[in-house]
Amino acid sequence: MDGSHWVGVKAIAEEMGRRGHQVTVVIPEVSMRLGPSSHCRTVSYPVPYGQETVDMLMDKHKDNIRAATLPLVERMTHHMANIQSVSSFILTTAESLLFNTTLITSLEQQGFDAVLTDPLVPTGSLIARRLGVPSVCLLRGIPCGLDLAAAACPSPPSYVPRFFTRYTHSMSFPQRVGNVLVSLVEPLLCRLLYWRFDQLANRFLGEDVGVAEVLADTALWLLRYDFTLEFPRPLMPNMVLVGGINCHIRNPLAQELEQWVSGDHGFIVFSLGSMVSSLPEDITQVFLRAFTLIPQKVLWRYTGPVPGNVPDNVKMMKWLPQNDLLAHRGARAFLTHSGTHGLYEGVCHAVPMVMLPLFGDQPDNAQRLASKGVGVVLDIKHVTVETLLQALDNVVNNPRYKSSVLKLSAIHKDHPVDPLELSVYWTEFVMRHKGAGHLRAAAQDLNWFQYHSLDVIGLLIVVAMAVVMVTLKCLSLCVRRFTTRKTKQD
Amino acid sequence: MDGSHWVGVKAIAEEMGRRGHQVTVVIPEVSMRLGPSSHCRTVSYPVPYGQETVDMLMDKHKDNIRAATLPLVERMTHHMANIQSVSSFILTTAESLLFNTTLITSLEQQGFDAVLTDPLVPTGSLIARRLGVPSVCLLRGIPCGLDLAAAACPSPPSYVPRFFTRYTHSMSFPQRVGNVLVSLVEPLLCRLLYWRFDQLANRFLGEDVGVAEVLADTALWLLRYDFTLEFPRPLMPNMVLVGGINCHIRNPLAQELEQWVSGDHGFIVFSLGSMVSSLPEDITQVFLRAFTLIPQKVLWRYTGPVPGNVPDNVKMMKWLPQNDLLAHRGARAFLTHSGTHGLYEGVCHAVPMVMLPLFGDQPDNAQRLASKGVGVVLDIKHVTVETLLQALDNVVNNPRYKSSVLKLSAIHKDHPVDPLELSVYWTEFVMRHKGAGHLRAAAQDLNWFQYHSLDVIGLLIVVAMAVVMVTLKCLSLCVRRFTTRKTKQD
Repeated sequence: MDGSHWVGVKAIAEEMGRRGHQVTVVIPEVSMRLGPSSHCRTVSYPVPYGQETVDMLMDKHKDNIRAATLPLVERMTHHMANIQSVSSFILTTAESLLFNTTLITSLEQQGFDAVLTDPLVPTGSLIARRLGVPSVCLLRGIPCGLDLAAAACPSPPSYVPRFFTRYTHSMSFPQRVGNVLVSLVEPLLCRLLYWRFDQLANRFLGEDVGVAEVLADTALWLLRYDFTLEFPRPLMPNMVLVGGINCHIRNPLAQELEQWVSGDHGFIVFSLGSMVSSLPEDITQVFLRAFTLIPQKVLWRYTGPVPGNVPDNVKMMKWLPQNDLLAHRGARAFLTHSGTHGLYEGVCHAVPMVMLPLFGDQPDNAQRLASKGVGVVLDIKHVTVETLLQALDNVVNNPRYKSSVLKLSAIHKDHPVDPLELSVYWTEFVMRHKGAGHLRAAAQDLNWFQYHSLDVIGLLIVVAMAVVMVTLKCLSLCVRRFTTRKTKQD
Repeated sequence: MDGSHWVGVKAIAEEMGRRGHQVTVVIPEVSMRLGPSSHCRTVSYPVPYGQETVDMLMDKHKDNIRAATLPLVERMTHHMANIQSVSSFILTTAESLLFNTTLITSLEQQGFDAVLTDPLVPTGSLIARRLGVPSVCLLRGIPCGLDLAAAACPSPPSYVPRFFTRYTHSMSFPQRVGNVLVSLVEPLLCRLLYWRFDQLANRFLGEDVGVAEVLADTALWLLRYDFTLEFPRPLMPNMVLVGGINCHIRNPLAQELEQWVSGDHGFIVFSLGSMVSSLPEDITQVFLRAFTLIPQKVLWRYTGPVPGNVPDNVKMMKWLPQNDLLAHRGARAFLTHSGTHGLYEGVCHAVPMVMLPLFGDQPDNAQRLASKGVGVVLDIKHVTVETLLQALDNVVNNPRYKSSVLKLSAIHKDHPVDPLELSVYWTEFVMRHKGAGHLRAAAQDLNWFQYHSLDVIGLLIVVAMAVVMVTLKCLSLCVRRFTTRKTKQD
């Protein structure tokens, strides 16, 4: 998995390497942000596209924001075309790895102890199955709940809000209806998301299995969340929470930056994540106009062409040391797209947030944190100078937000073992205990009919009905005999 | 909670005290094994019975073993009388505490941060509610599943075996039928077990609540098991596994004992736990005769009158340093009643076991460990010299058992944080975060109808039926109109 998904995998891989494990990272020759990591050996494989294809895909998000103003049909066509091109890209990348016979054979020969992967794109899980090696999956969650289904983890729709619904754990009746409906279409969504990978699994593994069966092999799930962002829900024994994995990986600011951010009014960190490098011109102008009206300085991660009218208190940078900036005592607010990495960094350093969710799990994340009072949510497609100023003023000056985020931060940082340490521990655990099969629930061997005891309930109903009918029959016979005798006596 | 339940609570209380917390332990003046602990302040309250009542109750287990040979009706009467006297005893103890106004008022005034208790007897949980203080519950499990219900923890009967069934997680169809039936009668069993405490809760708290509601207040569940003894099952975020809490609390053997146990053939540790101090004479003789025929020495915890014919290789002692003995390299086998504390000590030190379960969760525990190949189960009521010798020979000489227990031991001891350390950590966590309400699932606010989305499903069915009916009606109207028109045309 490329993009922000790489952050956590890289952190664990590097830490494993640092501890003396031999770690091999397999990446495509061309990517968004994959690259060599320290303490690891990197193996790259050729792909039939160039860097310009990747850049073009990353630029699509700008189009998406712009597309918000299009009429419905055009907007749908636009989004479908987008999804089509992204999924083709992902599939091409996967095929380039899976059907690179030399590379796969070489991997097979090296006798690995475990595969670490983000299974949102299940290439790594497929390789783990082919190699017969236990897999450790690091992820935020698969939108259609395939991860939970694969781990046989209960997820009652009555209080576990589904992806994309923006519900919290406490739902009204109409919301519960909505949530149940979403949970009913989840299997269909999984089919839609993974049908091409199902075919790929079939071809690559030479057996009649789909992604669901392959993910059910997962020895351990490292889940990139905790109960500051998620709502309390059941978990299985082979699920470990490691939210905030990169909170403590930090360095002092470069001297020039340190000087720039210093000042009485503090500063605001603004980033829409690694996937969105620039914004449509008109939206950029809204932000710039709002920033001229605030006393804080603004550090903005922006890789597009820098506009002419950037005010003095704004610094646009191609890359931000985001975690180091948020950890700085001068950080007053965090303008974020609500990716989990960014949110956890914000929570870790107790910085109130203005959230501008774009896609994926971001709207849900934003809603959840807003429900905990640590920030406000804005719709970036319709943002105005007024709403932005109002939001910034709120989170910077209303002490309620700071106090809520401080409370959440204290909870987030309070764990017996640091999330990165814990991730490494459990990865090693899987290696030490050859896949740790003792953590695998027997539920995984049941079909859904058996899992819900429907066969047993069916039998019990039949037996109960038989008992009732026999009893009724006996009673009616008795009554009839009694009345007949009585009639005779009369 | 008295008896073996005290072991874990005491360990945590002492460790909390050692770290500088002010810990107050509230115990009755007379008990089985409760007493002052280091680093804690002990407050005792008067009870309307003497030590002889307690001793008599503990001796009842001997009667129970003897009662196994009685005819069914007498046996049932015997057991009912036993249950009656034990539950009266427990209730009297609870009432002596709850209605000791001076003590309760003094507790109310001290401003505690948390209550640590074993909720099998829910006195501590009642006090926590009265004091408005978060409670931390340390327990193995409540036989009727009231703990899981209170925490809204899913427990599908299709693969989570119920107490007393002796099933494993992998059940045949008839076993699943049995397990579902047991799960159906669980609520009734809870009523039977706790109806007197429900009344007590009512009287003590002055509100219309039962034990179930009071247990639902529990901030954190410290569960005295792990997945070496239990089978993988869903857990809630406020449940922490701390099985094997006392594995590492150990001391070197006294010199005299060290000398006695030394020898080429090693020794066997024999204890039926703190609740059973002696055995019926005929069963004692079976053990003694078998022990004369084995080369190992035997250390036997036995508090009754010592018989005349104890062989040289057997040492009967009123108290055994059980954990220290099992940790000794000479330990060859462990004859145990299969209480969890003993089993975890056996697993911790990788000693194969002959299990003689007596009551409560012991038959289940024994079955589970036997299913993992670390020992054999015998029925103590019908044990013979031959079966005992056979069992001992098996676990001592068949390397299969040692190898299985070594594997299980490695898993049991492999955790990122020591269970005692973890217990203290989470207890402090609850104190730091004022009850840690963020770990409480919203499921606890739903009734079972809502929890299972039955209201939503009902609505969906009604809507679906309405849609189908309206569609059919429309179709039939269309068809009729069409045919009428056709007839007219004809």
